[in-house]
Amino acid sequence: MTPLTSLDELTPGQVFEFGTLCFTEADIIAFASLYDPQRFHLDAVAAKESMFGELIASGLHTLSASFGRIMGSGVFGTISEGGNRIDTCWPAPLRPNETIAIRTEVLETKPSRSGRPLGVAILRHTATRVADGVVVMEATGTHFLRR
Amino acid sequence: MTPLTSLDELTPGQVFEFGTLCFTEADIIAFASLYDPQRFHLDAVAAKESMFGELIASGLHTLSASFGRIMGSGVFGTISEGGNRIDTCWPAPLRPNETIAIRTEVLETKPSRSGRPLGVAILRHTATRVADGVVVMEATGTHFLRR
Repeated sequence: MTPLTSLDELTPGQVFEFGTLCFTEADIIAFASLYDPQRFHLDAVAAKESMFGELIASGLHTLSASFGRIMGSGVFGTISEGGNRIDTCWPAPLRPNETIAIRTEVLETKPSRSGRPLGVAILRHTATRVADGVVVMEATGTHFLRR
Repeated sequence: MTPLTSLDELTPGQVFEFGTLCFTEADIIAFASLYDPQRFHLDAVAAKESMFGELIASGLHTLSASFGRIMGSGVFGTISEGGNRIDTCWPAPLRPNETIAIRTEVLETKPSRSGRPLGVAILRHTATRVADGVVVMEATGTHFLRR
């Protein structure tokens, strides 16, 4: 994808599509083993006794893999100076082999008032299950971008 | 650590300490390659040109590794039924070889009103740089726990 060259190229409502992701059971277990070792992320049999009734992906897995896809696209890479906040919710569980579409919507841009060649973009990153259109993750991030 | 057996064992203000973590430059680059491929997380030379002036850990790395430590402790494992929200901020950058202490504070507990043997705990997870006491991550999560 074409890299952005300035925060000023972003406008509220603008949407970027980053294709799809799909985690196998092995992917889910591998991530959870390191970063979220809970029984319903690690073991399909034990997960049957949980509230979910089956193995589901760690929400941090969905967040991290989505972010990897977004940053890996190169769109923000040239102008990104990081961020300091992400508020994330997971409205529905994500099961193995369910395909999710990753997209980012621009909510707001705020050029720096200090005159520095920098500003803030509030970006909403979502993962949506392709089969039924259910949003499984919504992460609203505060990003510092050059102008 | 002793596993909790009910949400009702938690009280606001209660604190759990989960020891320390420390990322090497290689750890930081390995996580970022998968989940947050930005130049200031991947390349110490390129990072010099960034706002941070040096290589820093992805905030998602700090979040995921802290969560892995917390869930890996077994304290919440028996009663955890997952969660649906984490609001995370990173007030300061984390550099390679800086040791951080991981702790969780109970902010609030809310038993289910529906009579189900379940409730919500709002937990604040923090990572604090041991050398100077600076908080580098604060993540407030909504956790579903059995009673």
